[in-house]
Parts: sequence; C-alpha cells; structure tokens
Amino acid sequence: MSKPFRLGVAGLGTVGASVIEIIKRQENALAARCGRAVRVVAVSARDRGRDRGSDLSGYAWFDDPVAMARSPDIDCLVELVGGTDGPAKAAVDAAIAAGKHVVTANKAMLASHGMGQAAAAEAAGVALAFEASSAGGIPVVKTLREALAGNTVTQIAGILNGTCNYILTRMELEGLTFADCLKDAQALGYAEADPTFDVEGFDTAHKLALLTALAFGTEIDADAIHVEGISKITPLDLKMADELGYRIKLLGVAERTASGIEQRVSPTMVPKSSSIAQVMGVTNAVTIDADAVRQLTLVGPGAGGGPTASAVVSDIADVARGLIGAPFGLPVSRLDKPARAPMQRHEGGYYIRLAVLDRPGAAAGIATRMAQADISLESIVQKRSEVAAKSDPKGRSGQPVPVVLITYATTEGAIRSAVEQIMADGHIAEPPQVIRIERD
Amino acid sequence: MSKPFRLGVAGLGTVGASVIEIIKRQENALAARCGRAVRVVAVSARDRGRDRGSDLSGYAWFDDPVAMARSPDIDCLVELVGGTDGPAKAAVDAAIAAGKHVVTANKAMLASHGMGQAAAAEAAGVALAFEASSAGGIPVVKTLREALAGNTVTQIAGILNGTCNYILTRMELEGLTFADCLKDAQALGYAEADPTFDVEGFDTAHKLALLTALAFGTEIDADAIHVEGISKITPLDLKMADELGYRIKLLGVAERTASGIEQRVSPTMVPKSSSIAQVMGVTNAVTIDADAVRQLTLVGPGAGGGPTASAVVSDIADVARGLIGAPFGLPVSRLDKPARAPMQRHEGGYYIRLAVLDRPGAAAGIATRMAQADISLESIVQKRSEVAAKSDPKGRSGQPVPVVLITYATTEGAIRSAVEQIMADGHIAEPPQVIRIERD
Repeated sequence: MSKPFRLGVAGLGTVGASVIEIIKRQENALAARCGRAVRVVAVSARDRGRDRGSDLSGYAWFDDPVAMARSPDIDCLVELVGGTDGPAKAAVDAAIAAGKHVVTANKAMLASHGMGQAAAAEAAGVALAFEASSAGGIPVVKTLREALAGNTVTQIAGILNGTCNYILTRMELEGLTFADCLKDAQALGYAEADPTFDVEGFDTAHKLALLTALAFGTEIDADAIHVEGISKITPLDLKMADELGYRIKLLGVAERTASGIEQRVSPTMVPKSSSIAQVMGVTNAVTIDADAVRQLTLVGPGAGGGPTASAVVSDIADVARGLIGAPFGLPVSRLDKPARAPMQRHEGGYYIRLAVLDRPGAAAGIATRMAQADISLESIVQKRSEVAAKSDPKGRSGQPVPVVLITYATTEGAIRSAVEQIMADGHIAEPPQVIRIERD
Repeated sequence: MSKPFRLGVAGLGTVGASVIEIIKRQENALAARCGRAVRVVAVSARDRGRDRGSDLSGYAWFDDPVAMARSPDIDCLVELVGGTDGPAKAAVDAAIAAGKHVVTANKAMLASHGMGQAAAAEAAGVALAFEASSAGGIPVVKTLREALAGNTVTQIAGILNGTCNYILTRMELEGLTFADCLKDAQALGYAEADPTFDVEGFDTAHKLALLTALAFGTEIDADAIHVEGISKITPLDLKMADELGYRIKLLGVAERTASGIEQRVSPTMVPKSSSIAQVMGVTNAVTIDADAVRQLTLVGPGAGGGPTASAVVSDIADVARGLIGAPFGLPVSRLDKPARAPMQRHEGGYYIRLAVLDRPGAAAGIATRMAQADISLESIVQKRSEVAAKSDPKGRSGQPVPVVLITYATTEGAIRSAVEQIMADGHIAEPPQVIRIERD
C-alpha cells in the first residue's frame, strides 16, 4: 500500500467540520477505494479558540492557511475558506506553487481566477478539483468533465441557488410576497443577513460560469453573464404562471447559439411538466442537453454541510487514487475563447406583465407596438380587480389593470424595443415585468 | 503525447455503430481530454456482409471476437455483443487474460459472472468498465463508484427499464390495457417480439444487481432479487393509484435493512410529488439515498444507440487517460458477502385490490382478517359499478366489486398471511392484486 494521502483543511465552518467527520467515519472504505490511507493532518481557521464541537487536537494547527498550504506535511490543500481573493486565493496559489493538490468549494475565486489557477495546476502536475463549487452535492462537474466526454453539449440549465428556489417555492405555494419569504428564509438559516448575493443571482452566475466552461470547452467568462435576480417577482406573476401552465424558477442557462455562447441568470418560466419544474424548496437541479445522450437531469441538495462535504470528499478520493487531469477536462491552452452571444439576440418566448391604465385605446396601442416589433402573441390575459369592477363599471377610471402577454418565439431586442415604445406611449403605470420562457 | 489508445469493437448493432461514429466525431476533443489519440482499429460482428450504413473498411475485421480480444493490435475490447455466456463472455475473459482493458454494456453477463471477471481484471491490472450496463446514458455507475465515495448508501431505487415505463405511462394517460400498450410498444420498436425479459422485470433485476453491489460494497447477488413484472397491472390499478395520489412505476429497489440487503423489482406506488413519479415514457431515473449527500436523483435516457454509446465512450475516455481502478469501487476481496433480507420481512405500505363478492358479511370478514394479521388500514375505497348498482340495488347479487385497501406500514409476511386467509374465506372472486408503496 502506498503512503497516506495527507490533507490540510482550511476553513472550519459546517462544510469543513463535515469533511473532517466523513474522512474519519469512512476511513476504511476510503483506504480500500483509494489504495492508500486518506487522513486529515492539519487544519487552519481564523479563530483557534472557537468551540467547534469536535476535538481538533490531533491535527496540526495553522493560523495562516498559506503556511499550511506550503507545509511539507500535507499533500493536498482542502480550501473551504471562501471569498474571491484574500486568504483563500493566497492559500490555493501557494499550494499549487508548492506542488500540492487542491480541492476547493470556492466558486467566487474560480469564477474570477480559475483559468490562471487551472493553468498553474496543469503546469505543476497537481489537481485542482472543485466538484463542491457548482451545485453542492450534485456531481455535475464530474458528469460534464468525465461522463459526457463523448458529447457535444448544446445547453445547460440549472436551479443553482437553494435560497432563491426556497423563496420562489413558498411564494408559489402560499401566495406570499418576496419580502415575507425572504424574512422566513433568513430566520431558518436558508438566507444570509445580506441576501443580495443569493437573491440577485450573483451566486448562480459564479456557478454558471464554471459549468459553462466545462460544458462547452471554453474559457471562463463570468463578465459575459446577463444577471437578473428574483426580488421583483410578485405573487401575481407566480399565479399567472400557474394559470398558464408554468412555474417560475431562477435558472442559470448557458447555450450554444449561432452567435456564440449565451449565458444568462434570470427568473424563467418552465413548463410544469418539465423535470426542472418539479424541483421545490432548497433542492438544486441541472439539466444538460447534449448530442449523444440527449438529455440528463441531476437533482439533489445544492448546499449544506453534508452534501457539500460529500462533493469535497469525492474530489479528495479521486485525487488520492491518482486522478489528476486538467481541471476543466481540456487543458487550459485548448479551451476556446468564448464568442459572447449578445443578450439582444436571445431567442425565445416571453411573459410580459403590464400595469395598463384602464382607459380606451390602451389595449389597441399596446397591440400595435407589439405588431410593429414583429412580435406574435400566443395569449393575452387581462385580470380586472373586483374592486375596480364595482367602483368603475364602465372601465374608465384610468386605474392600472394587470395585462399579461405571452409571446411566441421572438428576440430580446424586439421585446426591449416594444416595451420601450409602450412605456413612452404612456399607457402603463409602471415598468413592465418581463420574464423569459423556456419551452423544452 | 503517449501512444494512441486502440479499440476493438465487438458487436455492430445500433450501439456499436454509434460508438464508432462518436469516436470519429470527437477525435480531437478525446485526444485533448485523454492526452492521447483514441482510435477504433478493429471490429467484429457475426455477419461481415451486412450493410451497416457506414464504411468499416478502415478497421481490421474479425469474425471471431475472441481472436480480436487477443490481438496484439488492440489495447481495449469494447464488448457490445450481449448475452450472459457465449461469445461475449468468451471475448471478455480472453481480453482480460491477454492483459487488455474491457468496456462493456453487458448487464446479463456481469450479473452472472461480474465478480469473477472483476477479480480477474484486478489481478491483471486492467479496467473492466460498465457504465452503459445499468441505466443507459445515466452516469449512475460513476456516481456510485466515485461521486459518493464519502457516503454510506442506504437505498437505491430506479426506473431502469424504458419499455415498462413507456407501457405504464400510456396505460395511465390513456386508460389502455397492458396488452394494447405492449402491442404499440412493439410496433414502435420499444419492446422486443418476446417481451418477457423486459416486462417481467428480469432486465431491471440484472441492472439492479450491479447497482446494489456498487451502492453497498457487496458481492453481486442477483439470485436474491425478488422479481415481479408489470403484466398483471390493470387500468383500474392505475386509476385507483391516481385517485389516491400515486403513480405506479416498475422500480428496482435495493435497501439496507436490519436483516440485510433487500433487493426487489416490482410495480410500486410512488407519491405523485416525488421526483421519480415525474419520469414518463422511455426515460429512466435513479434515486440514491445516502448519509452525507442525503438524496440524489439522476434522470435520463436508459436505452438507445446514442445514449448508451455516450456511456461507453465515457468509460473509454476514463480508461484511455489511465483511470483503472477496481471495477466495483472496492477490490472484489473487500466486498462484503451480502446478508439477504428475506422478502417476508419487507416493511412498508401496501395497496391491495380485491374483487369482493358483493354479499353481506364480506367487508366485515376481510376487515377481520386484516386486523388478525395486525394490519392497520389507512383507507378503504369501494367502487361499485354503475351497472351493478342499477341491476342490484340491494347489493346482494354476489357479483364481484373492486375494493381497494391502503395499509399503514406493515410487513410482507403479514400481508401474505392475511391475503391467504381472505382467499380461503371465499369472499373474493380472484387472487388479489398486491402492490407495494414507497412513501418517500
């Protein structure tokens, strides 16, 4: 049997604690699977004094994760500190420079620095493994990098943020507002005190950036992602979606189009019958369309100590038994520079909810603007409130009435131009709600 | 760059043809991913003269796959011949003995001979890879063997046969009988002329046998699997399931119980809201419950040339870049002898449909027998036909009326004993329909 595989774990939050616990619990199985013992030998965190509920006295303590990364006593740095720059990046860079393997869950760091770090790892002949960084416990990195080696991927679409899916699920099932659901999510620990990063789509965008590179064999291009969050979704939108046969999910989508790779994060209507529409609560899911396999959907927990640690340990086991390939499947030098598909050229159906001022001519004016932009309407739903109907039986109050338009496939450019005209015409009381529709 | 990785493909049906096409189409990407060229150099099939729609003249032809397996010109045998014994097994054994790697889609062979073949491969230091053998294009072997390395699996449940799921889906959606759906499935090429192997659950059982070994680290024990098919499911069962909030799926289930590993293949009621209930048509799905990751569900095509070839090529790419571990994750010598949990001890809810002779005392007699076996009933649904209600308003005709009992969790032993008593009492006109319920 070969020498033990020695780990230094940086970051001792719930994931770090869970990794240490799993490595201990699965000691025998991991040794048998990897052909060598797998052991945590060192740990690093900010506050040595904090009680973490488990005995860490058996491990060498480092105040500085960079010093741990360079220690001759470890073979692999497990980076669970987080953050785009700072100690996480410093420790990972130091580990690679010192010829150590790296396993990380850090999507923010990789979305910004992944290409340079992957190139450095390849040059040093070490692993840079990041299964836990993209969809928690779902093995989507392994699936894209290894299981679909014979495929050309055409699209990847995922629910990649459990906080957003939890909020949308409760809004849908209980008719609550975004603000109320967010408060509950914070109370339950599903959302941070500052929820911006999750609810405005940035977390999803980081994950999507990594998946896009893996799926299409392109360099990471996080800046190209069009990002919209869920904070403007209303209970009325969810109700209308339901009536029209859809659910609203915050999707990260990357697709190969004629004009390049399109990457977008936005609330999206998906048919209720689709696999991805069934995914409720904090669960994540990824659907991959590819030429040979056609369609695969992976569903599982996208966050949490146990599931994230499961992905981290999977990477550790792969590296321990010698699986040290290019971090993104193809060597960085072989990744394509992605041609960015401009969002204006996005093609698809749209849901447009307008607060139409209830007076003669409004509907005709709106319909005319849609026609001028060459947009065909699949359906129009007008919901007049009961209060308005009673107080103003002739419909001349000028009060706003919600009108929902569902379009056939058109372009983002056409939609934006029509919406701009409709706003300029003064027929609507507030900016329209525009939600993209994914029909397959 | 290392030497090319040279493949000999045995079996040139739809999967073999698709593998050859993919290897050609993905030539550059595979070379970059694997660090060496991947090439088909030899092929073997029964009939050289048959037109396969593609030019095979560039490959060495072997009438005998065993001779190809031994050829010094190949590094890896791709076995797509099929069958438990015969040329498939002979070729695989010959390849391993000659120090060649093996990639196979042959579940029947592995269910019977997998342990011996895996041990031989380990001793020879060659790969025996079989991603395509368990759920077509779904990467469940890789997920169990690698992605869940840090987990203890508690249950695996799958829709592993597209033919059965297609038939059940159409029976459910269109109210058709099993026989009618089977005819359509045969006409569409989804079912064989002799459908027994698929519809009676044997194909699912072979796949389950492999997944059980991977999931629980146990030796393959295909003979221990309790197998029931779908040929006795009626439109009434599907209608009753629907009314009660369930769908009926042919599931292969393996679970760790107090009395050992329970393996069963049978029509099973699953809650409509579960991920697995959403899987319709020829699609397959596998749900894995494990301690760290909690629950993962993988959904995708379980058969067909492209999807199966996708899995085969994934194995080829892994082997080409040097991933040559124990075929079942753990070395064969480290696999546990599975303790077989007797089916009598199976615990769960049951659906029991009885054709009750419509006369006084029948209901009381049945209820008494259930009580004697210590079975609690969650619901009782009696459906009296309209015809019977008109012709026999007092309900004394003695004609059979369908009565459905849904039980709380009980044991298979209790159910069998109660059903035996009820039959002996003469209250029912035909043997009862008994369907297990999976509630989570």
